[in-house]
Amino acid sequence: MSTEAERETIALEGPILVIGAGLIGGSIGMALAHAGLDVLVRDSSPGTTLLACELGAGRQEEGGDSPQLVVVATPPDVSARIVLEALEEFPEAYVLDVASVKQHIAEEILAGARARGLDSSRYVGTHPMAGREVAGVVAARGDLFRGRAFVVVPTPATSPRSYALAKLLGIELGAAVVEIDPDAHDEAVAYVSHVPQIVASLLAGRLTSASEAALGLSGQGLRDTTRIAASDPRLWVEILSANAGRIAPILRALGDDLAELTQALEVLNEPDPQPGSRARIARAIASGNDGVARIPGKHGGGAENFCKLTVLVPDEPGELARLLGDMGEEQINLEDLRLEHSLGQRVGLAHVSVMRADEQRLTAMLEKRGWARAGTE
Amino acid sequence: MSTEAERETIALEGPILVIGAGLIGGSIGMALAHAGLDVLVRDSSPGTTLLACELGAGRQEEGGDSPQLVVVATPPDVSARIVLEALEEFPEAYVLDVASVKQHIAEEILAGARARGLDSSRYVGTHPMAGREVAGVVAARGDLFRGRAFVVVPTPATSPRSYALAKLLGIELGAAVVEIDPDAHDEAVAYVSHVPQIVASLLAGRLTSASEAALGLSGQGLRDTTRIAASDPRLWVEILSANAGRIAPILRALGDDLAELTQALEVLNEPDPQPGSRARIARAIASGNDGVARIPGKHGGGAENFCKLTVLVPDEPGELARLLGDMGEEQINLEDLRLEHSLGQRVGLAHVSVMRADEQRLTAMLEKRGWARAGTE
Repeated sequence: MSTEAERETIALEGPILVIGAGLIGGSIGMALAHAGLDVLVRDSSPGTTLLACELGAGRQEEGGDSPQLVVVATPPDVSARIVLEALEEFPEAYVLDVASVKQHIAEEILAGARARGLDSSRYVGTHPMAGREVAGVVAARGDLFRGRAFVVVPTPATSPRSYALAKLLGIELGAAVVEIDPDAHDEAVAYVSHVPQIVASLLAGRLTSASEAALGLSGQGLRDTTRIAASDPRLWVEILSANAGRIAPILRALGDDLAELTQALEVLNEPDPQPGSRARIARAIASGNDGVARIPGKHGGGAENFCKLTVLVPDEPGELARLLGDMGEEQINLEDLRLEHSLGQRVGLAHVSVMRADEQRLTAMLEKRGWARAGTE
Repeated sequence: MSTEAERETIALEGPILVIGAGLIGGSIGMALAHAGLDVLVRDSSPGTTLLACELGAGRQEEGGDSPQLVVVATPPDVSARIVLEALEEFPEAYVLDVASVKQHIAEEILAGARARGLDSSRYVGTHPMAGREVAGVVAARGDLFRGRAFVVVPTPATSPRSYALAKLLGIELGAAVVEIDPDAHDEAVAYVSHVPQIVASLLAGRLTSASEAALGLSGQGLRDTTRIAASDPRLWVEILSANAGRIAPILRALGDDLAELTQALEVLNEPDPQPGSRARIARAIASGNDGVARIPGKHGGGAENFCKLTVLVPDEPGELARLLGDMGEEQINLEDLRLEHSLGQRVGLAHVSVMRADEQRLTAMLEKRGWARAGTE
């Protein structure tokens, strides 16, 4: 496996050994087994190994198995150790892990490989960005990664073939492959995943002190802001702990922002408030405007390329389909859709995003076909 | 206007004087004028008054106009003063305001009415919960309130007829009428609207420090958590200032939670961390689980009544319509829908919520009609 021709044409051929039969490992096994590849399953619990095999994630190991690829899908706190053991046990195999935090693991693997004389060029990190609200192999699904990002995170030692194989795995899983280095990966997920998770959880946690009547006025803003707060505490303890060094400074800065704003509001509530508080509040909200404008849209474009209209849709089977069918007939492509229900009414609000170039045609279509519009929120 | 029969059968007849021709006042004027009522418009700026009339929000006042109802749609910091002036200027009229914070205004009006010998039974507060991302009469729309909550907030002095008329206004605007007292209203909006706005703004504000590459890994979680951070700073300064006394304690408690969690993460990042930090993190995430479970769902039911499936939808006009059409044909009612796009792929993920009782029929339909499912996130 060393000629130039082979290097160019490496294929995902198997056998593939999945170590750790949880949600992610089980789902990878199912996807690959379903694609006809020979998948071996190993879990620290023999019962879980058996269950995973019965659920279709692969077969049990036999003496003499020689995997082409080892996928380490254990909790992040043991990933580095298991990767090193796999590099040692299978000197011909490529080895990757799927932990959602990468820098510490990569450093531990490079140092461990040096110390033990192992070839770390066969290791590459990955982060399949999917599936975190449920856990365990029973929740595993072969299609878990379809349409998601599969982040490939090479170390400086990773060989081109290791990298190519990880990419092929992502493609086989039906995901969109993205490359980024370990340091940048962990900084990125701290900002776009870990800190938002903490903020949503803490905000939702405050709702435990609110009255039933208060929650009765909940709108879509609160629902969106707290949706991810429904995530599994055990999983998130592992994820947040593994990236604590990058998350803490962002939280510290956020805490300073929050303290400053809280103080501004407290000053405003005094009988004779000092000036300057209103400007502080305005700056905080304006800075939020700037930040949210930086989040890329669907096709990588900024928000300014899109326009959003709100359409009233009767709350009956088929009505939303009729609206979208009307759009389809006029060749208006839906860029995004959010459905909102109001308090007990038999009508929903469909927030429809289209490219700005399609705005006029959409407006005309709605009028022509008798769809009622509501104001945007 | 005092017999018992009239009390029972009060109708919204007009003329209606709208004071303050911004987004809310303009939209109310347009809705009522469109319904054939005689609407008078008054703004502190004569130019804005003219513009509002030209846009269809009503007509200019003439000598001798005697409004049945005065709608005070000014910024919250002047609402109480304008309400009192209206009670004085039109001794026969009912007067309501639309400010999104109510307690201070109600107290100021009751005290002012007592001092000036005015009849405060003719006043009732309202809060039409709509339309805050754009401002000004140019953005006004007669359908702004359709399908939204119209909160009626009577004071202890509000007469049944005043209350009934406010309710009729909400119904005329196409909104869902909800009643709550001023204190409970302000506490409620602090929890479900003001604090979430601040949290979303501060979180989005932190993104201004993130790299382009980091933002490239943004997923739906970040988008949802920061969506409302796009709101208008000037409007929100007014709203937050007017409810500072109720928002600040919630923010203070949130800041304590955040500081505790930040410290736990900092401890975990030390070479030899003290025990207890992981349990603190787990408790924070678990408390978020509890809080988000308290938010009422579409038909007032809890989240446990629903199940969510994720379906892969080709990113082409009409494909989502076909999915929803298939559901409609099988009489499966869509409870909620969220559309998610992955990084530049030509496929979207439709997160479809249905009542748990419909889960099996939906699963069978998807299989029968060849829709591919993806794992839930």
